[in-house]
Amino acid sequence: MDIKTCKECMQLTSVEEFEAATNRLLETGAKVGADSWQQRVKNQTPHCKFGEEGICCRICSMGPCRITPKAPRGICGCDVHGIVARNYLRFTAGGSATHSDHGREICHTLYQTREGGNYQVKDPEKLKRIAGEWGIETEGKDIYDLAHEMAETALMEYGKPFGVQRFLSRAPEHTRELWKKAGIEPRAIDREVSQSMHMTHMGCSSLPEALIRQSLRAGLSDGWGGSMCGTEFSDVLFGTPKPIDTTANLGVMEKDMVNIVVHGHDPSLSEMIVLYAQDPEMIALAKSKGAKGINICGVCCTANEVAMRHGIPMAGNFLQQENVVLTGACEAIVVDVQCIFPALGPLSKCFHTKFITTSEIARMPDSDFIHFNVENAGENAKAIVKMAVENFVNRKPELVYIPEMKQDATVGYSVEAIKKCLDRVTNTHVDVTGTTKPLIECIDSGVIRGAVAMVGCNNPKVRPDTAHIELMKKLIANDIIVIVSGCAAQAAAKAGLLSKKAKTLCGEGLRRVCELVDIPPVLHMGSCVDISRMMVLAADCSKDSGWNISQIPLVGCAPEWMSEKAVSIGNYVVATGIDTFLGVDPYTKGSEEVTALLQGEHGVKDWVEANYTVELDIEKLCDKMIQRIEEKRVALGI
Amino acid sequence: MDIKTCKECMQLTSVEEFEAATNRLLETGAKVGADSWQQRVKNQTPHCKFGEEGICCRICSMGPCRITPKAPRGICGCDVHGIVARNYLRFTAGGSATHSDHGREICHTLYQTREGGNYQVKDPEKLKRIAGEWGIETEGKDIYDLAHEMAETALMEYGKPFGVQRFLSRAPEHTRELWKKAGIEPRAIDREVSQSMHMTHMGCSSLPEALIRQSLRAGLSDGWGGSMCGTEFSDVLFGTPKPIDTTANLGVMEKDMVNIVVHGHDPSLSEMIVLYAQDPEMIALAKSKGAKGINICGVCCTANEVAMRHGIPMAGNFLQQENVVLTGACEAIVVDVQCIFPALGPLSKCFHTKFITTSEIARMPDSDFIHFNVENAGENAKAIVKMAVENFVNRKPELVYIPEMKQDATVGYSVEAIKKCLDRVTNTHVDVTGTTKPLIECIDSGVIRGAVAMVGCNNPKVRPDTAHIELMKKLIANDIIVIVSGCAAQAAAKAGLLSKKAKTLCGEGLRRVCELVDIPPVLHMGSCVDISRMMVLAADCSKDSGWNISQIPLVGCAPEWMSEKAVSIGNYVVATGIDTFLGVDPYTKGSEEVTALLQGEHGVKDWVEANYTVELDIEKLCDKMIQRIEEKRVALGI
Repeated sequence: MDIKTCKECMQLTSVEEFEAATNRLLETGAKVGADSWQQRVKNQTPHCKFGEEGICCRICSMGPCRITPKAPRGICGCDVHGIVARNYLRFTAGGSATHSDHGREICHTLYQTREGGNYQVKDPEKLKRIAGEWGIETEGKDIYDLAHEMAETALMEYGKPFGVQRFLSRAPEHTRELWKKAGIEPRAIDREVSQSMHMTHMGCSSLPEALIRQSLRAGLSDGWGGSMCGTEFSDVLFGTPKPIDTTANLGVMEKDMVNIVVHGHDPSLSEMIVLYAQDPEMIALAKSKGAKGINICGVCCTANEVAMRHGIPMAGNFLQQENVVLTGACEAIVVDVQCIFPALGPLSKCFHTKFITTSEIARMPDSDFIHFNVENAGENAKAIVKMAVENFVNRKPELVYIPEMKQDATVGYSVEAIKKCLDRVTNTHVDVTGTTKPLIECIDSGVIRGAVAMVGCNNPKVRPDTAHIELMKKLIANDIIVIVSGCAAQAAAKAGLLSKKAKTLCGEGLRRVCELVDIPPVLHMGSCVDISRMMVLAADCSKDSGWNISQIPLVGCAPEWMSEKAVSIGNYVVATGIDTFLGVDPYTKGSEEVTALLQGEHGVKDWVEANYTVELDIEKLCDKMIQRIEEKRVALGI
Repeated sequence: MDIKTCKECMQLTSVEEFEAATNRLLETGAKVGADSWQQRVKNQTPHCKFGEEGICCRICSMGPCRITPKAPRGICGCDVHGIVARNYLRFTAGGSATHSDHGREICHTLYQTREGGNYQVKDPEKLKRIAGEWGIETEGKDIYDLAHEMAETALMEYGKPFGVQRFLSRAPEHTRELWKKAGIEPRAIDREVSQSMHMTHMGCSSLPEALIRQSLRAGLSDGWGGSMCGTEFSDVLFGTPKPIDTTANLGVMEKDMVNIVVHGHDPSLSEMIVLYAQDPEMIALAKSKGAKGINICGVCCTANEVAMRHGIPMAGNFLQQENVVLTGACEAIVVDVQCIFPALGPLSKCFHTKFITTSEIARMPDSDFIHFNVENAGENAKAIVKMAVENFVNRKPELVYIPEMKQDATVGYSVEAIKKCLDRVTNTHVDVTGTTKPLIECIDSGVIRGAVAMVGCNNPKVRPDTAHIELMKKLIANDIIVIVSGCAAQAAAKAGLLSKKAKTLCGEGLRRVCELVDIPPVLHMGSCVDISRMMVLAADCSKDSGWNISQIPLVGCAPEWMSEKAVSIGNYVVATGIDTFLGVDPYTKGSEEVTALLQGEHGVKDWVEANYTVELDIEKLCDKMIQRIEEKRVALGI
C-alpha cells in the first residue's frame, strides 16, 4: 500500500489509494464485528426492479401496485407514466422540503441573534444588501432590529398566502418570463411541498406533464427559495466565505488529539462546536486527559461549512462517514440533520466513539441525544465538546489507525469571493469591478471553453469518488472550469483538485487563468444548499454577458447523486436553464413518457430551455458535457 | 336479481343487492371493452409483501432496499423499525397535506367572496363566532371585510413562522396539556408537512418514537388545522348543514334526464355546478336536446357536500365511481380533487360520457380539462353544465341501464344541527340549550351505551361496504349511536341506515332516543374533512360532561380505509384521545416496534391516552369496539 502525503508536489491522491485506506479500516471493523455499507450493499443487491424503474406505487392501501405487461394499470387505473411521474414529484418534494427546512432553521437562528449573544450578525453589509433587494428600509436601523425583521420576512417566504418567492427577482428577466409562462414560479416554499404531496395523493394528478411541471416548481422553491435563504442568511450569521486554505482526507484526524467529527448540514451547530473546541477550559480538560488538544474535522456538508469559514479540515464525504469511526480515533461524531447513516449508531458501539445526535429532525437509535437549540447553543455545544473530551481516555490504542492521506485545498469561493478574484484581472481604468465580466471574456475568447457545476453525493452504484474525480480531471484538461459543492467538492479536495497546484493538470487556457486570477481550477462554492450560489453566479453571468442563462456554455452535473435533495436540485438547475447531466438514474426509466419529458427535446426543454441527460457510463457522460458546451459556443458564435 | 326500492318499509338494501347491480353493470362494461377495478385487483394480486409490510425503502437512490433476515438493514444502516416508521410518517404527511390543501382552497375562496359575487358569505353568524374565538374584532365591520380578514388569518395558519394552530383552543384543557407535554402541538400546517418530509429524508430520523410523534403532530395539523379550516369556512361560504332529506344509491340517476355526476371533494366546484344546473337557460337547452331536465348527483365526498346542503342525491361512494359511467346514462362526470380513479379517463371513452377535470391539482389523461377557478367560477360552471347537456344526444340507449335501487336518507348533522336536535329534549326550564348535555345524560344513564365515529373509504381488500354496514347494524342494535362521514356515510345511505326508519333496527334505548330526538341512529356528519366536526363534538362532550375525551365511551373506526388522508385522520383522532379501530393494515406490520407504539399500551397511549387496534376480522373488530366502550363505562362508573 502506497499512501502519500502530497504537500510538496502536485500529485493527486488516487481513488485506488482511497480504497486501500478504506480496506485497511474495514479490517479493523472486521475485528470488532462492525457492519459496513460495503457489506450492506452486497446484502441489498440486486435491488427491486420495480422500485428502480419507479413503477411501484404505495400511495394508497389498496395496493401496493406494480406495473407489468399483464397489469398495465394500478387498481385505481393509474398507468405507468402517472406512477413514475408521481414518484418523481414526491422524490422532489422530499428534497425540496429538506433543503428548505434547513434554510428555515437558519432564519430562526437569525431571528435569535443579539449583540453579544451566541449568534451574531457577522456580515451586516450582506444583510443590508439583501434588505435592499427586498425593499426593506435599512437606513438608521439597528442591525439586530434589521436582522429580526429580515428573519421574519424570510420566514414568511415559507408560508405567505399570496405572491411568489422574493429571490426570483435575482434571475434575469428572460428566465423570469419563462417561469411565468410555464406556470412554475414558486409561491410559499412549504405550499409547493404540500401541493406536491396533494397532487400525488391517490386520485389526484396522473398526467405526467402536470406532475413534472410541479417538480420544477417545487425545485425552484428550494433553489431560489429555501436553499437560497439558507445560504444567504448563513453568510449573514457566520460570514460570507472567502478563499481559505485547509486540508482534506482522513489524514486530517490527529492521533494524539481529541478528534471531534462534525457531520450533517446546519452550521448553527458546527459553528458553536468549533467555537467551544477553542475554549481554554476545554483544551485544558483535553490535556488533563492526556491529549495534545482538540481537533475538529468535518464530514459531509458540515465539513464544507466549517472549512470555508474557519479552515477546519475535511475528513471526508458521504461514503467516508463510517471510516472516521473506523480509525478508532474518533472521540465523538456530532451530527445534526441529513445524510447521516443510522449505521453510525451500532458502529460507534463497536468503538469508544460517542455518536451524538442533536436535532429533533434527526433522532437515531443507539445515539446520545443532546438537544441542541439556539437559545442554549453555547451550553449545548460545551456539553458536547466536554463529552467528547472526557471520552478520550476510553480510546483503545490497539484499534487506532489513521491513514496518512491528506491534501491541501483552498475553499470558500462564494460569488462575492469569485468576483473579488476576478477584480484582480479587471482593468480598473476601463471597467467596473465586482462583476463576472472577466470570466465572460475568458469564455467569449475561448481561453476557458465553459464551466461545469459539479455537485451531489456519493452512491455505491458508482465506484465512490471516481466519477467526480475523473470528470473533473478531464474537464479541466479541456479548459473547462469546474465549480463544486457538497460531497463532490470533498471528492475534489481529497484528491487534491482544490489545490491551486492543480493548475498543472489544466489545459493551457485554464492554467493561465488560474495563474492570473490565483485560483484552483476547481472552485469550492460550499455545501449542497450553496448550489443557490451557483444560481446567483449564473444569473450574474447572464446579466453581465447579455446571454440568456441557457445560452451560457455551462452545464450541471451530479454523477454520483443519491438523495432526494439532489433531485430537487436537479429540477431547479434545469428550470434555471442549465442542462444537467446525471450519472445515476432517478427511478424514472419505467416510463418513456416521463423520460421524454425530462430528457427529450419537447418537455421541460420547451418550457425552460434546458433538460436532463442520464448517462451511466462516466466516459460518455463527460464527452456529452463537453459536446454540449461546444454546441453552446457554436450557437453563440464564439 | 331482486332489486327493491324501499320507500314504504324499512328494508335495508343488502350488499348482495349492491353486488348484483354491479355485476349487471359490469356486463355492459364487458360489451364495450371497459376495464374495471375488479379486474385490476385480480391483475395486481398478490401484492408485494415488502410493500404491504412497510419494509421497503425508496427514499434515496442507493436502493431501493428491502429488509429480509439476510439483509436486516438498508444500505444507510436504517433498520426495519426506522423504515416502517418513516414510511408511516410519509403516508401521514401525504394525507395531512392533501386535506389541508383542500382547506386552503376554501380559505382562498373565502378571500374572494363579495356581495353579489359567485361566492358569498352564507353563514355570517358562524363567521363572527369563529372571529370571536380567534380574537378578531367583528363589531361594526362589513361582513365581507371580516370574511377577507378571516380568510387571510386562516391562510396564515398554513405558514405562520411562530405559534401553534388557533383551533387548538377548542380542545379541552386536559387535551391541550397532553399535546404540549408530548411536544405534538402543531405549528403552521405546511411546516408540519415539510418537517415530516425532512425527518424522513435519507439520513435524518430513524427512531420510531420520534417519527410516530411527528405523525401525530402532522395529523393534528390536519384535523385541528387544515381540515377544520376546510369545514368551518365551507360552512361560512355555503351554509352550515342542517338535517335535510335526500336519496342514495345508483337509482338516483334519471333515465330521461341529463345526468351530471359531481365527484371529488371541494364544494367550491360542486356548489357552482348545482347552481348552474338550475339555470333556466340550461334547463331549456336540456329540453331542446330531448331530456326532461338536468339531474345532478354526487359521488364520494362531493356527494356528501352537496347532499347535506342541497339534498342532492348521492349516487355512490368510492368503489362505485366506475358504476355511474357504466350505467350508460352519465353525460358528464365532473371532478375536482382526490380519490378520483384515473380509470375514469379510458372508461369514459367506452361510453359517451365526458370526463371533465377541473383542478390543477388533479390533472388526468383522457379527460376534458376546464380549469375551474374562483374568479371565473360562474362562467366555468356554465361551460361544464353546457358541455354535459349537449352530450345528452350522444347517449347510446342500448347501453343504458340504471339499477332501480335507492334509499331515503336524512343527512346534514353538523355539530350545530346535533345540538339543535338535542334542544328538543332539553328541559328549557332547568337547562341551558345548545349543549351536548342531553346526549351525555343518555350515555350516563346507559340508554345509549356509547358512540362510534365511523369514517373512511372503500378498499377492495374488504368486501365493499360490508364492513361499514355490518358494523353499523350491530352497533345500533347494541344501543351504540354511530356518527359517520365520507364514504362510510354513503355506505350507510345506500343501505338505508341514514333513514329515520332505521330506528327499528336499534336496541330499545337508542330507538327511544331516535324517536324522541327525531334522528336516524346513524348520523351523517359530512365529508372526510368534516371529521373535524367530530373532533369539535368530542371536545364539547368532554366540556359538557367533565370527562376527558379519552374517558368518553366513544371510539373511532375506519374499517375499509384506503387513502393517506385516512391515516392522517387516524393520527389526529387517536391524538385527540379517541381509540381508533382499523380494518385494513397501515403498512406497518413489518415492525414490532412501530406496531407496539401504535397499538400497544406504552406508545401513543402513554402520550395521548388512546391508541390503535388493527383487526382484519370484522366480527372481532365490532366486538372489540363494544368491549372498549363498555370498559370506558366501567372506568367511569356509569
